Amino acid sequence: MLSLLLTFSCQQPVKKEQPQEPTFGIVIHGGAGTILRANMTPETESAYRKVLAEAIKVGHAILKNGGSSQEAVEKTIHVMEDSPLFNAGKGAVLTADETIELDASFMHGAQLDAGAISGVRTIKHPISAAIKVMENSPHVMLSGAGADAFAASQGLDIVEPEYFYTERRINALKRVKEAESKEKETSSLEAEFIKHQRYGTVGCVALDLKGNLAAGTSTGGMTNKKWNRIGDAPIIGAGTYANNATCAISATGWGEFFIRSVVAHDISALMEYKGLSIQEAAHTVIHDKVGGMGGDGGVVGIDWKGNVAMEMNTPGMYRAHMDAVGNLNVKIYKDE
Amino acid sequence: MLSLLLTFSCQQPVKKEQPQEPTFGIVIHGGAGTILRANMTPETESAYRKVLAEAIKVGHAILKNGGSSQEAVEKTIHVMEDSPLFNAGKGAVLTADETIELDASFMHGAQLDAGAISGVRTIKHPISAAIKVMENSPHVMLSGAGADAFAASQGLDIVEPEYFYTERRINALKRVKEAESKEKETSSLEAEFIKHQRYGTVGCVALDLKGNLAAGTSTGGMTNKKWNRIGDAPIIGAGTYANNATCAISATGWGEFFIRSVVAHDISALMEYKGLSIQEAAHTVIHDKVGGMGGDGGVVGIDWKGNVAMEMNTPGMYRAHMDAVGNLNVKIYKDE
Repeated sequence: MLSLLLTFSCQQPVKKEQPQEPTFGIVIHGGAGTILRANMTPETESAYRKVLAEAIKVGHAILKNGGSSQEAVEKTIHVMEDSPLFNAGKGAVLTADETIELDASFMHGAQLDAGAISGVRTIKHPISAAIKVMENSPHVMLSGAGADAFAASQGLDIVEPEYFYTERRINALKRVKEAESKEKETSSLEAEFIKHQRYGTVGCVALDLKGNLAAGTSTGGMTNKKWNRIGDAPIIGAGTYANNATCAISATGWGEFFIRSVVAHDISALMEYKGLSIQEAAHTVIHDKVGGMGGDGGVVGIDWKGNVAMEMNTPGMYRAHMDAVGNLNVKIYKDE
Repeated sequence: MLSLLLTFSCQQPVKKEQPQEPTFGIVIHGGAGTILRANMTPETESAYRKVLAEAIKVGHAILKNGGSSQEAVEKTIHVMEDSPLFNAGKGAVLTADETIELDASFMHGAQLDAGAISGVRTIKHPISAAIKVMENSPHVMLSGAGADAFAASQGLDIVEPEYFYTERRINALKRVKEAESKEKETSSLEAEFIKHQRYGTVGCVALDLKGNLAAGTSTGGMTNKKWNRIGDAPIIGAGTYANNATCAISATGWGEFFIRSVVAHDISALMEYKGLSIQEAAHTVIHDKVGGMGGDGGVVGIDWKGNVAMEMNTPGMYRAHMDAVGNLNVKIYKDE
């Protein structure tokens, strides 16, 4: 009995080597929040599902052909940054000053290399700027006009501010400002709308056939944000984290809570130090930690074995997963 | 035998409640780096020791009188921000554009509240701006001109840019720029000087009699920094972290590595999830993780029981510790 117990208690931890059969996979999100069937027309719903499928297939094809998780994440996010549906790139929300301030970050799991930019105004694909910071600057994080200048020096696509102004976001800013000015009179429906304007980040995590994990996140931040606010999306450890020993995570939600909870790194730490699965770790952090503090949002993640997590404590999160076999799962509501 | 083993394996984890006897303590740093006896005159050395002692006594008196760890951290950092010796506030280094861009962050361990500012140019005490962001804005992190405007709206001390220009930092920028322009011809002594210009952040962590932990960090960043670079100091989880269940941490060093390693949160996670002591956790992160990647620097930390860590993988770190009894320990070199 004694030897049995000792054998049991001395068993080796799960081997953190390559899985025997190399595999790959990709997961994306297009923001979490108050996404309810009641507020969605069939047309809108199918428009979201279409872009999510289109985006993830781009990354999946790269991975299937032996391409890197870095390229898969970058190119997949480009599709979402180019769509006016998501709060990133083209569809970014407006600040209180009616400007655009884009944040993005990228992390590679092999050497823990990372790059991030915050508050840029002229870059068509912020995720690519984050990657260039990682690859071609001695820094991890650049901000404001400096980050715009660096991106321009790297030959990235630069656009005029007008590129980002969409009618939907101009109207959203107006509604939020009006609600703020009369505050207490806001109807609960309007309050839900306002709350929803906090969300909409896009993100992608991928595992490639070489066992490399990568994570990227891109956002316009919060509608009506002030004082050059920085959310969790460009913060390595909060909105984005990747480590080949554990997982790749991209977060979306009420950024302030995600920074304070160091969400992406905490999921990795729970896996590395406590042996939790990616699903258990993501569940703990989103529900017990972020939720316990009163915050909301979600994450997508993939671990070094290809297991995935799509966890949220909001009514919905635009998301999709595609595995090595090619099974595609596109979801919007929590309960589907 | 079986019941003995079961009893043993089922024992409760260390109780994370208040220690039986309330205690308090405070630890500070004034930057880690190539701090060598050979390069230090007795006068310089004693000037550093004097300000470190002066600063920590301010916080210690607050804690001794039942004041909060938040106030102790803020007021202690003010002393270092007011000194031209440290790379924070008054003594901040210059950017490549010969401007000042100050970063700071603060975190409170009770509710995991946090505030941070990056790239501000007019605030005399950046740590107070970080605290105001936490207390009086809906955000955690503000940057650039927006953060300056917010600080001004809070009635904080605003100074003219000239306030920050010290001869020492103007000369340092010249030397770094000259060395950069001829690169390979740089002597090894000069290379050491250049390398040292990466460092000099100040920070403070404290435990008060109510069991609340707090951590703060303030810096001018890297000499000759470009593109509105953001280092680890204003990043919650990287340069600063506090959690009453574990510890309060403030980091200093080569910021890029500290961001990628999510240093401050990783130390807390190793304590929370693996049961490491604060010293073991700080040692692991600074030596194995940051050091393993080729980065250098150090951290100071204090846990919920008053245990402290002052860990570095550089030849020196300006630092001091003062315990509840009033024992004061001021150190500069690693080997003292």
